[in-house]
Parts: sequence; structure tokens; C-alpha cells
Amino acid sequence: MKKDKLSTEPYKGVRDFYPRDMFVQNYLFDTMREVAERYGYQEYSASILEPTELYEAKSSEEIVSEQTYTFLDRGDRSVTLRPEMTPSVARMVAAKRRELGFPLRLYSIPNVFRYERPQRGRLREHWQLNCDIFGISEFEADTEIILLASEIMKAFGAKENDFEIRIGSRNTLEVLDMKLIKRGISEMDRKQIRSLLDKKGKMPEDERQKEIERLAGGKIEPQESDDSKEIRRILSDLGIANVTFDFNVVRGFEYYTGMIFEVFDTSPDNNRSLFGGGRYDNLLDIFGAEPVPAVGFGMGDVTMRDFLETHKLLPPYVPSTDLYMAVLGNEHVGAAHAFSEKLRAQGLNVAIDYSARKVADQIKAADKLGIRFVTFVGSDEVASKKYTVKNLKTGEEKELEESAVGDFIWTQEM
Amino acid sequence: MKKDKLSTEPYKGVRDFYPRDMFVQNYLFDTMREVAERYGYQEYSASILEPTELYEAKSSEEIVSEQTYTFLDRGDRSVTLRPEMTPSVARMVAAKRRELGFPLRLYSIPNVFRYERPQRGRLREHWQLNCDIFGISEFEADTEIILLASEIMKAFGAKENDFEIRIGSRNTLEVLDMKLIKRGISEMDRKQIRSLLDKKGKMPEDERQKEIERLAGGKIEPQESDDSKEIRRILSDLGIANVTFDFNVVRGFEYYTGMIFEVFDTSPDNNRSLFGGGRYDNLLDIFGAEPVPAVGFGMGDVTMRDFLETHKLLPPYVPSTDLYMAVLGNEHVGAAHAFSEKLRAQGLNVAIDYSARKVADQIKAADKLGIRFVTFVGSDEVASKKYTVKNLKTGEEKELEESAVGDFIWTQEM
Repeated sequence: MKKDKLSTEPYKGVRDFYPRDMFVQNYLFDTMREVAERYGYQEYSASILEPTELYEAKSSEEIVSEQTYTFLDRGDRSVTLRPEMTPSVARMVAAKRRELGFPLRLYSIPNVFRYERPQRGRLREHWQLNCDIFGISEFEADTEIILLASEIMKAFGAKENDFEIRIGSRNTLEVLDMKLIKRGISEMDRKQIRSLLDKKGKMPEDERQKEIERLAGGKIEPQESDDSKEIRRILSDLGIANVTFDFNVVRGFEYYTGMIFEVFDTSPDNNRSLFGGGRYDNLLDIFGAEPVPAVGFGMGDVTMRDFLETHKLLPPYVPSTDLYMAVLGNEHVGAAHAFSEKLRAQGLNVAIDYSARKVADQIKAADKLGIRFVTFVGSDEVASKKYTVKNLKTGEEKELEESAVGDFIWTQEM
Repeated sequence: MKKDKLSTEPYKGVRDFYPRDMFVQNYLFDTMREVAERYGYQEYSASILEPTELYEAKSSEEIVSEQTYTFLDRGDRSVTLRPEMTPSVARMVAAKRRELGFPLRLYSIPNVFRYERPQRGRLREHWQLNCDIFGISEFEADTEIILLASEIMKAFGAKENDFEIRIGSRNTLEVLDMKLIKRGISEMDRKQIRSLLDKKGKMPEDERQKEIERLAGGKIEPQESDDSKEIRRILSDLGIANVTFDFNVVRGFEYYTGMIFEVFDTSPDNNRSLFGGGRYDNLLDIFGAEPVPAVGFGMGDVTMRDFLETHKLLPPYVPSTDLYMAVLGNEHVGAAHAFSEKLRAQGLNVAIDYSARKVADQIKAADKLGIRFVTFVGSDEVASKKYTVKNLKTGEEKELEESAVGDFIWTQEM
């Protein structure tokens, strides 16, 4: 059964996270988490595996039948690796509608799967912050969700002119639809027009305009509906200035029932939609539950990482390990252990090298691990209770009393 | 396509995590994380989806063919939802063998899937802390891994007499195997004997003994091998007293090459194996990589949660939201927003109720959400800049200047 040379590659379109990658991932997640909780959102989670029927009700057929990982389990039940989190959270809210308190604010950072032909920047698995507020039909919920999205961007160090919030509305699109019906445009063409609106920035603009005009039998100039006007007014009161109306913001028409928004990178190098969301008041219907108004958004890790890289906002790597303890001979392992336990009791994270290699090799290992400080445990140190701490970033060395090592590293790390 | 009354149940054998469940899960993960990092372990992660061949090389055929979620993707590649993390981390280490520094200490808290007939306490998905140290063949790596496991138990509040560390060894089992070969016992029966050793505590003891004797053609009394003696000696030097030798500790014979250990709950109500691990020096062979010695363990969330519940060690629920702001009329939403932003700037997590319901209903919602403090924003409060803070746990109320509310809640929460 054993094969020679099994590949060390991960499955196509998914990622391995080594400690340096995990550091970035944790930075993203911790920042998202901190802001979401600041606004009263509480964390939930669900399994990646869901019954397929959960997606058949509201997602487009194209997504379920062509873009999901769907298979039969050993009991012949059709299951799907979630392509998005919203159906799961709607299911959970419907299940405990009476026990939960409303307004209910929930967030989660799940991984989601889409089957895509692997290509640059198109991954089959990514992580996605989902924030949703349930139980409020007033515009305050819409504006809070947009405020939260904006605050997360700012917590990442983005300035207001680094990104733009574009607001659309289902109402605007419905009025447009009505006008097109009056012009005698077929349902299929109207759907095609909505899909072309959504493609703004994703295809040549003149081509897109020409195609819309052809299908619509002339120019279209949708007017802003009252809901998005009011939402923009409240956002302006909240001091959020980088907001525009854009009738091209469509996203999932099957899904959204009110405001729809999308956040765009304003950088010319990365001018694209970063993430978005909107109001979906009807989703709980599929469970036969009383309707619960809901607004939310999803923010993906891959897009956000690209944004932060483009704008040079990613912090430099700092490993979780503070100190590497090089041991100069096996007979000193006991002393190294005792010393490291003292430092750990002071809150330091300490790794011991048990290899008894040459000291240069031990330092090299610490450096590969990205650990900033090294200390050495040999006969002299054990006898004198004095230890040299070397900073691998600067090359500086300092000899310290055993009891001073912990404080020294704490101070240096500040 | 739309169906009436879609079920709100999750897929069989997996769990939904509402904020109260997530609190426990985060408590478990944060504690594991903190101790792992204290010992210099760095976090990594990989996708839940792996090529099936990764498991065919070393896992038992029974597990791959009967207990995994394995299916063909749309490109006819066989993929598997990981049933364990070790093959993934071995793959990652093999892939970057030259870039990584050794000793390499890694941890992760992945979810893993096993297809099991659903029954009480048997879940199809659970989370599992994995800690591994690569690159050290000396016993210090074995003892560090056991020390780490023991420190995590203590960080959860377990006392040394709440659990027992049982150490076995592949060497012990190999010497036994040789003796049985000399007695003329067939390979199949020897395998059966190992499986019976592993069943200690999982079936009636006299039945187990009788069956072993029958298969072995007499009593078996394996002697402790030198490696586990030495490991027990070092652990004793490290001050870990709750360690015994137990030749019944077998776990995955295909896998482990040296020390094997298991941690048992000593409570009579829950006397069972909690988790375990061991040394596996040959796993990187399957990638054609040079061998890298490795020791590690896996600790599951379901078992640990049971253990902590049995020993009454789970902390009470504290929601991430500190304060619920009841708004007494829509005209005060702006003032509530401005006040909440001041409190958020002081580090408080604040949720606003935009519903304009009766105040009793707003308090009820806060209570359902488990939030401890409520404050009220109405005409009087806005005019006087004085706010009443109500503690929903004790019923106490206190009127405070706007500027004193943040500090008051901070102090109360300490």
C-alpha cells in the first residue's frame, strides 16, 4: 500500500499555512474579531459540512450544481462543503428563534469552498468574516453594518481615501426592471442586464455600456431610491464621507431585499471590489420560520490580504516564541529546563534546543525560526548564573544576571 | 426549487456553535494555545481537504475505506476530509525541510472528520489540538511533549491526581511480538492481541484477559523497555509524578516507532482515555524525504469538554459584549451612537438596541443575550448627561455621569 514519493503539495487551490502565513492570518482574524466585538457582535460557528438542500433553496442553481463540493455520504445523503456562511447562520437563527435575544448580532470567520478552475488569485478555499444583525428592519441596522465594515478597514490602517463604499438598492433595481418590462425587454435579457451591471470594473467599460444599451434598447439611467438616500444621509451624520450611490451594485439579486453595498479599493494598482453585503429580510422563510429582518456582509481573507499588501499595511512577522535557548552540551539540559521554566513563569515563550549541536548551528536554527533572542546555557553560565542574551536582528549581545533576563526581553520587545 | 420547511438541524454528527458554545470552545482553544506557545510551539494550519493518497500510505485501510469522508472532485481526483492532522503536518514539514529550523515545534487546532454511525458522544466532526516537535531523536523531545500535555491539563485547573499519564513503548510491544512468534502465534492473532491490549478499559477486563490468554496460548507479561524507563526517570526529575508504565498503551502500531502515551481521567465517573500520542520517526518516508524524528500528541475538544464538565472546571459564560444600550425612542439613536462610540474608545464592547420597544422588552433581550450591564438613553439622560447602569445579574442600579460609565463597568468586571 505504501507508495514512494507521495507529493508534498496540498490539494489544488487550497493553502498550507506555515507559522509565517499563520501570523498574517491571525493578524487579519484578530483585527476583524476585535472590531466586531466592539460593536456587540458575538461569535458563532457551524460545521463546514451542510445538507445540500440548504443551498438549493436560495443560491443560484449555477453555484450549487457547478461550483460547490457536493457528494453523497456513506448513508446516501447529499452533503456540501459550505460555499458561503449565510445559509448556515440563517438556519441557526431559525432553529432557536425564541431563545435568542434580538437585535442579535453575530459574527464568524469560517472557511468556505468553491470549486473553481485553479488560476492566479482564484482559490478553492478561503476564509471569510461574516457579520450579521438580525431583528432590525430600520435603516440603523443597515448603517451600523456599513459603519462596522468601515471601522474594520480603519483598524487595518486604511485611510478613508484608500477605499470607497458604493451603495445600491434592490428598490432601484426593481424600478429599473419595471421600466425595462414596459420597454418589452424579456426576462432573460433583464437578468443579463443585471449581470452586466455587476460586471462594472471586471470588463472593458465601453464594451459593457454598449452591451447594456443593446439589451435594454437604449440608455438606462436608474434613479437612486429613497432607502439608499436615507442610508447615505445617516452615514454622513455618522461622519463617514467615502460613500457614493452606484446602481451597478447588484450582487445576489435572489438574495438581497433592500440596501446592497460594496467596498472598493481606490488604489489604481488594485482597483476592485474588496467585499460587500446587504439586507436580506426573507432568508428565514425557507425554514418556514416567521420572517426576521437581517443585514450583513462577508469579507474574504485573500482579498483583504491583497489590499493590505498593496497599501503596505501588513505588520512584519513576529513569532510567538520570544527566546531560543541554545544548550552547550547534553549535561546542561536540566539547567536549561529549570531556567526556561522561570522565564515561562514570567510570561515568556521559550524554546529549548536539545540537539547539542555546535552553537553556530543552534543560532542558525533560531534565525530560521524567526526568533529574535537567543541565550546560551553552558558550564560557565550555570556556574556564574550570568547569561548572554543575543538579539539576532541587531547582533547586539548583553550579559545579564539570571533574574534580569526576563525583564530585559520584555523591555526590548515593547 | 424553493421548498417549504427546510430542516433547521445541522448535518448529523456535527455541531452548531451558538455564542455560549463558542465561549467554551474559545476557552478550550485559548488555553491550549497559550500553553503550547509558552513552550515555543508555533501555529500552523492546512486545508481540511487533502488528496486521499495522503492517508492510504500510513493509516489503517479500515479507517480510509470505511471511516473517512472520501469523494471524487469535479476533476475526478479523490479527496478526503482529513480524519487526523499528522499526515498534513508531515507533508508540510517534508515540503520545506530545508527552509525550516529544527527543532521545529508546531501546533494547530484543526477540525477533523470521521464517518461514524451517529451515537451518543460519537461525533463525526471534532476539533483537536495537535502539538509536534520535529528534529530531536533524544528522549528530551518525548519528555517535553508529555510535560506540555501535563501543563495543558494543569492550565485547565486539573490537579495531578485528576489524571494519570500511562507510558508504553513500541519496543515493549516488539519484544512481546517476538516472544509470541516463538510460541508460534500467527500474525493475525498477534494483531488481535495488540488490539485487545488497546481495549483496556473499553471492555470487561476479565473478558479481555481471557481472550488475550486464549490467543497468546497463555499469560503474557511484557517487561518495560529501556526507553520508557529512561523517559519516566526524566519526567520524575521534571517533577511530574502521575506517570506509570502500562504495556497496554498501543494506539496506532503502524505509526509509532518509540514511546507511546495516553492520559487517563482518574475520576470513577469518567474513567477513560482522554488523549495521547507518541514518537513517529518514519512518517516523512512516504514523501521520499530524509527521515525526521518526531514526537507529538492530539487532544480532542469533545473529550476535554467532558473532562472539564466532570471535574467542574468549566468557567461560567461571559459574553464578549460588556454593555447593552437601551434606546427610549427613535429620536435618541444619534445620542446613543455618540455615547457608545465614547465607551468603545475606552475599550468596551457595546451593543445598541434600535428597536424602540418598551424598555422592559429591551432589558429582556439583553438578558437573553447574557449581557451583564444595561444603560438607558432617553430625553432625561441626554439632557442631564447622567446615565443609569443596571447590573442584570444582581439587579443593582447606579446613576453615573456620562464620563464615569466606562470606568464603572471596567471596575465591576474585574
